[in-house]
Amino acid sequence: MKDHSADPLDAFRDLLGAAHVQTGEAAARFATDWTGKWHAAPLAVLRPANTGEVAACVRLAAEHALAIVPVGGNTGLVGGTANRGALMISLERMAAIRAIRPEAGIAVVEAGAILSDIHAAASEHDLIFPLTFGARGSARVGGFLSTNAGGSNVVRYGSTRGLCLGLEVVLADGCVLDLMSELRKDNSGYDLRDLFIGAEGTLGIITAAVLRLSPRPRHHAAALAAVESLPAALRLLRRLQAASEGAVEAFEYMPRSYMAALARHRPDLRQPFALHDHAVMIDLGGLSRPLDDVLEAALAEAAEAGEVLDAMVAQNEAQRAHIWEMREAAAEITFTRLPIVDSDVALPLDGVAGFIAEMETRLADLDPGAETLIVAHLGDGNIHLTVYPTRDAADHLDAIREMVEAVCVARGGSISAEHGIGLSKLATMSRRKDPVALDVMRAIKAALDPENRMNPGKVIPEG
Amino acid sequence: MKDHSADPLDAFRDLLGAAHVQTGEAAARFATDWTGKWHAAPLAVLRPANTGEVAACVRLAAEHALAIVPVGGNTGLVGGTANRGALMISLERMAAIRAIRPEAGIAVVEAGAILSDIHAAASEHDLIFPLTFGARGSARVGGFLSTNAGGSNVVRYGSTRGLCLGLEVVLADGCVLDLMSELRKDNSGYDLRDLFIGAEGTLGIITAAVLRLSPRPRHHAAALAAVESLPAALRLLRRLQAASEGAVEAFEYMPRSYMAALARHRPDLRQPFALHDHAVMIDLGGLSRPLDDVLEAALAEAAEAGEVLDAMVAQNEAQRAHIWEMREAAAEITFTRLPIVDSDVALPLDGVAGFIAEMETRLADLDPGAETLIVAHLGDGNIHLTVYPTRDAADHLDAIREMVEAVCVARGGSISAEHGIGLSKLATMSRRKDPVALDVMRAIKAALDPENRMNPGKVIPEG
Repeated sequence: MKDHSADPLDAFRDLLGAAHVQTGEAAARFATDWTGKWHAAPLAVLRPANTGEVAACVRLAAEHALAIVPVGGNTGLVGGTANRGALMISLERMAAIRAIRPEAGIAVVEAGAILSDIHAAASEHDLIFPLTFGARGSARVGGFLSTNAGGSNVVRYGSTRGLCLGLEVVLADGCVLDLMSELRKDNSGYDLRDLFIGAEGTLGIITAAVLRLSPRPRHHAAALAAVESLPAALRLLRRLQAASEGAVEAFEYMPRSYMAALARHRPDLRQPFALHDHAVMIDLGGLSRPLDDVLEAALAEAAEAGEVLDAMVAQNEAQRAHIWEMREAAAEITFTRLPIVDSDVALPLDGVAGFIAEMETRLADLDPGAETLIVAHLGDGNIHLTVYPTRDAADHLDAIREMVEAVCVARGGSISAEHGIGLSKLATMSRRKDPVALDVMRAIKAALDPENRMNPGKVIPEG
Repeated sequence: MKDHSADPLDAFRDLLGAAHVQTGEAAARFATDWTGKWHAAPLAVLRPANTGEVAACVRLAAEHALAIVPVGGNTGLVGGTANRGALMISLERMAAIRAIRPEAGIAVVEAGAILSDIHAAASEHDLIFPLTFGARGSARVGGFLSTNAGGSNVVRYGSTRGLCLGLEVVLADGCVLDLMSELRKDNSGYDLRDLFIGAEGTLGIITAAVLRLSPRPRHHAAALAAVESLPAALRLLRRLQAASEGAVEAFEYMPRSYMAALARHRPDLRQPFALHDHAVMIDLGGLSRPLDDVLEAALAEAAEAGEVLDAMVAQNEAQRAHIWEMREAAAEITFTRLPIVDSDVALPLDGVAGFIAEMETRLADLDPGAETLIVAHLGDGNIHLTVYPTRDAADHLDAIREMVEAVCVARGGSISAEHGIGLSKLATMSRRKDPVALDVMRAIKAALDPENRMNPGKVIPEG
């Protein structure tokens, strides 16, 4: 072994070339994430070109007892890439879409491939990779798999977990785990793939993946509808699912709080009807038949039942895009003021209305002037709840956060539906996750990363 | 602690009552599994009544350094419950369907609940639990989850893994892991659920589960069709998926070898047309609309393209049941003679035809007189291939088995699609699974079951 005691980074420069070991100004692009809450001050950002170089970086890091933090598009929301003095491994040079295989219905991609590039590549074959969310132009494969990112069409296509058939992972000891299955079914031993998906880089670095593609719907039918209540919204969803043979691609709950904030911040996005207490955004995708009639008939039936109060059905693609824009403005209109307590909870489908009602009652006790903003992937029971308290004291924000968690967990909910844990929810994990489950996670982490060098301190709270 | 040195089973009798610690004749019902290949000679069969008793059994077993083998309906095919001198824990007394919650779309069940009982309970609410296979009248929740059992409608509803939202597991140390989530999305730490699903009882004992239900299709359309080739069958599948909006519930490949065996063994099951080289069984399930027209139109288009050579569309439910019976006779017509080399492989969808062609060529070299029987869940790329060699020598059977594995793995396939590993495929795992993956499995097994007492010797070959 060479003597790198002078500067441990020299070994990495020898390995990758000096241009791909970034420090100072060049490494500063990851210094602050886009929420503004989380910071990274890495020793260096490494830019390996292939899986072999990633593995070599991991082995070198072990020799120098350095921690490793993988980074993709850095669009996460939970501080998953925050660090001080770690080696960040950026997958950005490993962005190839190696193959689209239409007959097999798969894409083989490197971990640095950008989500919207995968969309474009699939589209050339009249296929889709269904996962989509606002940050699709920046988010990379390794990141959306490591966080098991959600999005707006999980209701039809399932979570990211279900869209990934195979993985390649560099482990803490520098070995390469080859799980690059292209199969719909594989029962050859433990399901390691799903262990690495959602592990936020704490068990290894995802370097490549096999993704499942779906036929592209040829016909879309979208609407914005004011509904009488949350249960009425869920009944409308079931009505639409039955009438469209499960073709509901998005069913997004946008109540008064959301539509009012949208009106304030995005007056350019004209709203088709006056404010109601409850509204939903609907998109149907038909493979072989137009679904406008199905959508209009379901809305008419629901209106007759008193469940739908007003509705605007998109008459063309521009109107459909307009409706989507109203939904996708969520990130931009949410993080507009401080103090803020944001959450990403999931409830059983029959527990959403009760959660919101109890949360609002208890919030009125804690902070009568606090405002809330809610937008939800209603078909998945996934609620993005933002509270704007009237006071910025840390204990006050904590009390609100704890109340939201308590109401959620008491109703069988999860304190992280799709954003993950990172650093931001460690205390929540301590308080709310089954202690036996935490012990099992710790045992697995210790077994696969005994020196605790893979994204240390994330996901699992200290025991 | 009492002195149980005289008979370690006394402690279990104290715990469960003597009637629920079965030995001798009473325990003999698990002595031979239904393949006839695998045998169990347990020290006793324990019949706990609830999760607390399961946990107490596991702790007592630890005190006495006894191995534990959980058993459900014992309908597995890979020797997963075979043992000598272990404590078998039967979940048969924990058979309750605790709740069906239609608004949430879930069933909460105990691990001993029988699959067909879950079907019946869901049906009362106009819902289905989609998983189904021949042994549904005996198979129990703990078994079908521990093996991640497949079946005929994975093509529409996904694998068992995807149909399970939550789990309760008794771990090797007797702790109870509560993962009883009712949620569509949950990103709160590592995906432990999927680690226990498919682990065949080697990491813990599943005691309860939350299952995902789906709306019951109101309209079915089924057919048997002779097709020109395997690629023509896959084109017909895509045609049907598009035309029906993804309503294909089953698409089963039944080539000449299968239909001929069916004619020999089940002459009562009248076949609607003469033998062709390739046939498929089709079932569509429509939530809101009859799909007979869709099916007939797709078959007519395919016939015009020369891809479908003959077809019989079921005109009523009796004819549909008849078509299903032809498919479900598979187990009964497969295990009719010896010697036999059976396999359960999965291929990428675009690799099925190539696999079969190469396998047949190489088999003709190894054993020119050997016959094959093939039936496949074609939509999943899952092929049940049975070879009947002309000689019974162990090395000859091994050579055939190795050849099938080699052709499968070289084409990106898996050596176990849906039946699991158990004891029957340990050698195959050694030879064919990524060695790094095996090491990761061993590390996880050692971390969660350090004394190797949970179904020891299954799934993971010795290092």
